[in-house]
Amino acid sequence: MTDRLYHVDGDVVPAEEASVSVRDRGFMYGDAAFETLRAYGGEVFRWDAHAARLAGTCDVLGMDHGLADADLKRRVDETLAANDLEDAYVRLSVTRGVQPGRLTPGVDVDPTVVVVVEPLPRGGVDGEDVWDGPATLQTVKTRRTPDRSLPARAKTHNYLNGILARVELRVTGADEAVMLDADGTLAEGATSNLFFVRDDALCTPSLDGPVLPGVTRATVLDVAESEGIPVREGAFTPDDLRGASEAFVTNTTWEVRPVATVDGIDVGGGPVTELLSRLFDARVERDHYASDP
Amino acid sequence: MTDRLYHVDGDVVPAEEASVSVRDRGFMYGDAAFETLRAYGGEVFRWDAHAARLAGTCDVLGMDHGLADADLKRRVDETLAANDLEDAYVRLSVTRGVQPGRLTPGVDVDPTVVVVVEPLPRGGVDGEDVWDGPATLQTVKTRRTPDRSLPARAKTHNYLNGILARVELRVTGADEAVMLDADGTLAEGATSNLFFVRDDALCTPSLDGPVLPGVTRATVLDVAESEGIPVREGAFTPDDLRGASEAFVTNTTWEVRPVATVDGIDVGGGPVTELLSRLFDARVERDHYASDP
Repeated sequence: MTDRLYHVDGDVVPAEEASVSVRDRGFMYGDAAFETLRAYGGEVFRWDAHAARLAGTCDVLGMDHGLADADLKRRVDETLAANDLEDAYVRLSVTRGVQPGRLTPGVDVDPTVVVVVEPLPRGGVDGEDVWDGPATLQTVKTRRTPDRSLPARAKTHNYLNGILARVELRVTGADEAVMLDADGTLAEGATSNLFFVRDDALCTPSLDGPVLPGVTRATVLDVAESEGIPVREGAFTPDDLRGASEAFVTNTTWEVRPVATVDGIDVGGGPVTELLSRLFDARVERDHYASDP
Repeated sequence: MTDRLYHVDGDVVPAEEASVSVRDRGFMYGDAAFETLRAYGGEVFRWDAHAARLAGTCDVLGMDHGLADADLKRRVDETLAANDLEDAYVRLSVTRGVQPGRLTPGVDVDPTVVVVVEPLPRGGVDGEDVWDGPATLQTVKTRRTPDRSLPARAKTHNYLNGILARVELRVTGADEAVMLDADGTLAEGATSNLFFVRDDALCTPSLDGPVLPGVTRATVLDVAESEGIPVREGAFTPDDLRGASEAFVTNTTWEVRPVATVDGIDVGGGPVTELLSRLFDARVERDHYASDP
């Protein structure tokens, strides 16, 4: 163990002592919202977008935790400062806490807030990728949970759907699972959004399907549009991805990660992937590392 | 707080100190198997059936925890003894523990085992129901998670699907949610199996759908068959339930609980419900409370 510090229920505590009650609903039922954040140069990337998504998750869960966004951000900032970390992975969780009774959640919530951090390399123009190389992707049998069962826009501690997808990768050792929806339409990776280039357009599964509205996904779409790259958010098949001229996956820690292969078929990154990755890094550099004028 | 004792990671500890690491996968992702058990007269009801289902859950999760069933049972028994409880609710959880890396689970597992207990009234012939009265049921919009996303036979800490169903009951105050599968076929309650009587046959959704193979469900079916009551396990509609001559729900703590209404429509228990409830109690009495001959 390092001398890492986490934030639990309002206090900064040594990581090895950071715990939650076995009666916490976050443990018993995965009844909790979370966000994966990335800090660059001491500041969380797009905090407002993450805070809005967290609030949306809590809405889906019918959980009014009563905490202000600023309070949550303060806990994240305190955790980064306590660990003297400027560039970091951050996991912020808000659980429904301990309640009387069993499954039915009470309206009165005494939430448990947990912040876990780990160091990451610097980002931006002079940054270093956190991944080893382009991702190998494999389409799995586990289907993304439909929105009518648990909305994909809710980022919760119920992550077994993605875990079962990753367990399927044990045989091939692929890096990421390509998950389809109930109808066999492309949805997303277990922890990433899917992008590919076809007929010179940047394609990605639309949020009409069971797809997490990724913050990096939104940033990449914004960058693409500002560059005049045609964007198609829609319904795609696994063959659309396998037959793409380039492909990449995104999430908060990976940022833009090129795809090497899909189901053993060479796809690779390419000029659009490289351009978007470079422009993403430039935004991070500008917003997080550039000296004030 | 009472002076209740729980069992965590091999030790009996005061309930208020019973905790798991915030890095435990059971907390981070709900990556854990569990069983709800009931102890009657100091012995867990149908331990073998629960142990087999727990093993099945771990199989689905690709989790080889390496613990013998007898070891798990010993921890349950130790917890009951430490609390001087003979009649109790027991929740036994086995998590994938703390692992390096993020979502992808490692093959080497150092599981966290947690046993939580609460007193319940005596069961059997002279027992007392744990519920207040016949259940009011309401059909909800949240659909049971399909087996291709997370198999229903796996009883895990991913319980938000049932929680969202229960949140829908806030407006009416109904006791239990009736959940349909993706096609609109009857599946199960949020924490119970559904039974109803139609044309003198005992009907229940078959395990071909996303339905937990309840231990009480199996016991009730066994009792019904031994009494010569015709049993139909199949695919049913919400109208089949609403139009039934009697209905009841089952789970480990409720045992056999009659249904008062479904979506506001009177259904009620009846002679079959009463007979099965009485015979269930008789089995519990015989196996758990009767003096040895």
